[in-house]
Amino acid sequence: MLILIKRNANKYLCQMDKNLNSVSELGEFGLINKLTKDIKVKHQTTHLGIGDDAAVINNGKLETVISTDMLIEGIHFDMVFTPLKHLGYKTVTVNISDICAMNAIPKQILVSIGMSSKYSIEAIEEIYNGIKHAAKVYDLDIIGGDLTTNPSGLAISITAIGEAKKEDLVYRSGAKENDLIVVSGDLGGAYMGLNVLQREKEVWNSNPKIQPDLDGHDYTLERQLKPEARLDIITLLKEQGVKPTSMIDISDGLASEIIHICKQSKKGCQLFENKIPIDTSTHKTAIDFNINPTTCALNGGEDYELLFTVDINEYEKIKANKNLTVIGHITNEESGINLITNGEQSTPIKAQGWDHFK
Amino acid sequence: MLILIKRNANKYLCQMDKNLNSVSELGEFGLINKLTKDIKVKHQTTHLGIGDDAAVINNGKLETVISTDMLIEGIHFDMVFTPLKHLGYKTVTVNISDICAMNAIPKQILVSIGMSSKYSIEAIEEIYNGIKHAAKVYDLDIIGGDLTTNPSGLAISITAIGEAKKEDLVYRSGAKENDLIVVSGDLGGAYMGLNVLQREKEVWNSNPKIQPDLDGHDYTLERQLKPEARLDIITLLKEQGVKPTSMIDISDGLASEIIHICKQSKKGCQLFENKIPIDTSTHKTAIDFNINPTTCALNGGEDYELLFTVDINEYEKIKANKNLTVIGHITNEESGINLITNGEQSTPIKAQGWDHFK
Repeated sequence: MLILIKRNANKYLCQMDKNLNSVSELGEFGLINKLTKDIKVKHQTTHLGIGDDAAVINNGKLETVISTDMLIEGIHFDMVFTPLKHLGYKTVTVNISDICAMNAIPKQILVSIGMSSKYSIEAIEEIYNGIKHAAKVYDLDIIGGDLTTNPSGLAISITAIGEAKKEDLVYRSGAKENDLIVVSGDLGGAYMGLNVLQREKEVWNSNPKIQPDLDGHDYTLERQLKPEARLDIITLLKEQGVKPTSMIDISDGLASEIIHICKQSKKGCQLFENKIPIDTSTHKTAIDFNINPTTCALNGGEDYELLFTVDINEYEKIKANKNLTVIGHITNEESGINLITNGEQSTPIKAQGWDHFK
Repeated sequence: MLILIKRNANKYLCQMDKNLNSVSELGEFGLINKLTKDIKVKHQTTHLGIGDDAAVINNGKLETVISTDMLIEGIHFDMVFTPLKHLGYKTVTVNISDICAMNAIPKQILVSIGMSSKYSIEAIEEIYNGIKHAAKVYDLDIIGGDLTTNPSGLAISITAIGEAKKEDLVYRSGAKENDLIVVSGDLGGAYMGLNVLQREKEVWNSNPKIQPDLDGHDYTLERQLKPEARLDIITLLKEQGVKPTSMIDISDGLASEIIHICKQSKKGCQLFENKIPIDTSTHKTAIDFNINPTTCALNGGEDYELLFTVDINEYEKIKANKNLTVIGHITNEESGINLITNGEQSTPIKAQGWDHFK
């Protein structure tokens, strides 16, 4: 191989050449699609590659389910208001939530951390304490990782590994017409928690002597800073003998996720605005901030609840559970992906979730 | 949970509190040890956790071998002289080298990239082209990952997954007294390639009109910019029916790696300086730079060759292979970890490999 050293490795930087295209033109999903559309899997053991919450590998009796996520300071978290232990915990939550969304049980994690020299040993220990606490709560083995310096800030990448019987796995693509659409917990809280924190940060920036006004926001703050993965729902559904027909976790907002399910299942849907579960404190905070609570649920993201579809005959098993809410049903593809508003109008759902490339 | 928002999340930053300890005091291995020493694995399927080249999970017939690494701009690579396609390729090499070091066959990778907005779509495509090329060369499925923005620079985290029969796995801890110590390929080249590139960068910084003088450095530059994982050696050893007693890949330099093998095997060793394989161009460049070639091999790192031990009875199968060099033998623990120099002096080997925390 002849190596051509380009002194100007900068030749791919946007500001150097107007013919180059900024990533913001495509956004996250557009870029992923561009990079991965020609990738085909070759190994028999690779049961599922890119395109769902996690990948699936078969090694014998059980399927191995794998997912990875990277959280970066200044993009996914703000060190001004993020306790380090919570940050470690949340990084695990984000990852095993993807494993749960495959109807699999998370078992192991690998943890890679890149950090600048400004962070002390004590800081990294706090992050690790949060990770270890999550490993205890979710019964995970920490089996590896990497530690490195970073020129600035903090980057955490976690890979989560789970297992499931082949027949238990649930993909985004399995929704059938007339299936019920179900969501766990309630939505929009994490987004309002973020709004509260950002407001207080601004106040503090203008006058560091003012104490933060966080009273009455315990719920939304906890949703933002220390979300839980709904492994309990996976266990519950198994106990009740309910296998969802499709499933996804809500990281980018209900709108983005129901679109994933509908598109990958080649179906449409009707969601009912008045059925979307929103906690009273989320609702109150949204009104205080002059934000429509439904918008928080649809586009806020970071709730890490599960969105899934079940056959309509499972309704009896679902309806009594206060952790689960039926919010609509699957239709044929031609009917589109629609929200029936409180005013009984049908309006197409568009993904306006947070895209950090835009 | 009562959430206490610390306005001063900065409280863990070194410069804020003199009682806090800088990570540089511990270094990479010290920090890893501090963070992970109390981690115990709980799941029956977790056959091996932290402490070897990769973790091992049992899912049935085959063992799943998993490793992860994070490469960061300004720490692991310099964009001034790193072609993006090579960077993508090298990131895969670094990871699957760990899988090979377990005597396993790499099968899948997950790719997470964090990048600042200065990078164009074309830049990320180039990185991905390198990753895809490596996937083709090493027969890997790309099964997932994450894409995100980064406030500055580029961070790439890859998780590699491989498989092996339980009886084929080789750990760092299996070396026995009188085993031969064998290394693949040659050492020190990647480090000298880095030296050449850094010299030319300095020249260029002082006068961008001067053309880089890279003539005659093809070999060391390739070793630095586009190293290969020695999957071919794993295949070769299998064909010859040789199972190493212990193995590790050389990422931090021969000294650091032989110490890992000896400590984890509770043994000592004698390495012979005059047996260490060093390419003539590496040797020549080292002399030009006034660096001892043996030092390059011992402490340079990034060669991604395999260092392993075999029973002495396997010598006949090893000796004829020009890709393999016997460089010493394992002794009892009390004898220590020693280099027999060209002057026939015995001197203790110390790890002085590159520690990015120091």
